Amino acid sequence: MKLRVIDWTASGAARLLDQTLLPQEVKYLQISSVDGMIEAIKSLRVRGAPLIGIAAAMGLAAAAAGRETGRSRVTQADLEWLSEEAEKMRRARPTAVNLSRAVDRMLECAQAAFVSGRSDLAKALRHEAQTIWDEDQAMCRKIGFVGSEIIQRGATVLTHCNTGRLATGGIGTALGVIYTAHEQGKIKKVFADETRPLNQGSRLTAWELTEAGVQCTVITDSMAAALMAAGSIDVVVVGADRIAANGDVANKIGTYGLAVVAKHHGVPFYAAAPTSTFDLTLETGREIPIEERAAEEVPTAEGAGVFNPAFDVTPANLITGIITDRGLVESPSEASVSKIFPTDSYPLPA
Amino acid sequence: MKLRVIDWTASGAARLLDQTLLPQEVKYLQISSVDGMIEAIKSLRVRGAPLIGIAAAMGLAAAAAGRETGRSRVTQADLEWLSEEAEKMRRARPTAVNLSRAVDRMLECAQAAFVSGRSDLAKALRHEAQTIWDEDQAMCRKIGFVGSEIIQRGATVLTHCNTGRLATGGIGTALGVIYTAHEQGKIKKVFADETRPLNQGSRLTAWELTEAGVQCTVITDSMAAALMAAGSIDVVVVGADRIAANGDVANKIGTYGLAVVAKHHGVPFYAAAPTSTFDLTLETGREIPIEERAAEEVPTAEGAGVFNPAFDVTPANLITGIITDRGLVESPSEASVSKIFPTDSYPLPA
Repeated sequence: MKLRVIDWTASGAARLLDQTLLPQEVKYLQISSVDGMIEAIKSLRVRGAPLIGIAAAMGLAAAAAGRETGRSRVTQADLEWLSEEAEKMRRARPTAVNLSRAVDRMLECAQAAFVSGRSDLAKALRHEAQTIWDEDQAMCRKIGFVGSEIIQRGATVLTHCNTGRLATGGIGTALGVIYTAHEQGKIKKVFADETRPLNQGSRLTAWELTEAGVQCTVITDSMAAALMAAGSIDVVVVGADRIAANGDVANKIGTYGLAVVAKHHGVPFYAAAPTSTFDLTLETGREIPIEERAAEEVPTAEGAGVFNPAFDVTPANLITGIITDRGLVESPSEASVSKIFPTDSYPLPA
Repeated sequence: MKLRVIDWTASGAARLLDQTLLPQEVKYLQISSVDGMIEAIKSLRVRGAPLIGIAAAMGLAAAAAGRETGRSRVTQADLEWLSEEAEKMRRARPTAVNLSRAVDRMLECAQAAFVSGRSDLAKALRHEAQTIWDEDQAMCRKIGFVGSEIIQRGATVLTHCNTGRLATGGIGTALGVIYTAHEQGKIKKVFADETRPLNQGSRLTAWELTEAGVQCTVITDSMAAALMAAGSIDVVVVGADRIAANGDVANKIGTYGLAVVAKHHGVPFYAAAPTSTFDLTLETGREIPIEERAAEEVPTAEGAGVFNPAFDVTPANLITGIITDRGLVESPSEASVSKIFPTDSYPLPA
């Protein structure tokens, strides 16, 4: 993919590919305010749990760059401004923990810069946002490598939603696994769920896989079970928006049903996510807040209601393994999840 | 619903509500040729297993009415003409057996008229088509009554695709059950699957339920499992396009996955269908031909493939019961299905 999904402009603003228009139209947005980035995140112009973390960080940095305070060090007023903007940013979308975690890191970095007195706010925030991005890119590569080991040669893989270059700061999570296995010559074919209501699978995943030369066939979400019954799926790999301490995974709506039908057919079911997606403050997935989106996303007849949760929770017992940048968590549970989080580095190591 | 889904015109043509335009536009088509009816059936302007049987019969009758042979009795030439047209009509769509069965009845009726010498072809076919319609209407009422007994008071029902007044010659099959239970004051709420790729649930089911005063909430197909996990669904009732002798049910794509998740959550799963939907010549559902439709129905990125089967097969062991006009077939199997088909009336009684 030759397109940059996110980037900095010369003036320090954020430049975003508007994903709502893909694949028909390639249009970039220049964003230099927190409100602008919140709008882009809420409207899914930028989406994907890891990428909205990066975008939120870049949005705060871009807004700081636009303030032109003329000061060479972080002031108390800077911290107060940032604190207010950060809390607005944090509330843009509730389910993916990466957003909230990125906001926390921006606040911590500003505080550290305030204490050290060696940098102005804009410079400090830009550096931290870039670090979050760089780390995510590195985590994607590791996830791809770890996950490629569970892909058999000649595999047909089913995936849901979009978890690739359009959803992260690198090659992706579930799609990172697929790209890496593809480079190893292992992938026969990928089935991509359409992923209603916003079609991230048929619009985004099919587009980026095809661009990358990976053979991709789109199905409606409702066809996965029939494909499994026909023996056409070797493994399911999906992403994650938040993972609780016991290994329960919140991900795009439809993931849970996919896990149930995979279990029924004995098809291995994996989630792939960076460590930044784990939220060890939550014991189980029941505590994960599930975003309910506007009825307009599901057009119907006048007078009929619409229920439109954007995510669901897949319990750990339906998950064969969670593919992370720190290795494979097999048969996820509190015990197996805790192994990749040494207590001295919780919640997220530097 | 004040609209007539299908009707005769004064000249003996068929008048069809174009369902592809609903709910935005109410437009009728006048059809007086077999090719015209085949186009309407293939394009899903008229759809629903029972209704396409009725439409096919009416299409043949309408075409016969337009021939104006001036003869008062059926001739050998009439039979030859009908035989050719009937075989074209039979191939319009492959999965629903009602279509093929209706065509058989039209051929048998013409043969009988030829032998008796008492009627011209158009009159005989019009009478038979009307009989198929009337019988379907009566079967819907019976299905509704039989099915209403499995609905508990205060029930929240999940249904898939459209199986109501827009899919049959009467009040419907699965929706016939819901309408009847609604009249009995038992229905709290209906969740309607959107039903990709052509949205028969969000366009048609939501429309006709809302028109009838039944509270209806649309969900995407991928949300059903999460609703069941939350305990929000008391029972699933769907229709059927063809039922094999062992109780395996072919129905709209997504039905099978719904049955798997219903089983996982212990939610009762029923199919509702008239006896004309059973095909006892097939031992199991594996023999049911599954229509694959055009890739254009699932828009995606250039270069990506699309797999678009219109139906799937749900094995009998996932089905709590089949609701028919001859009673409830509990725990469907060859033995329980055969009970509603006394050998002297097979394949379909007069």
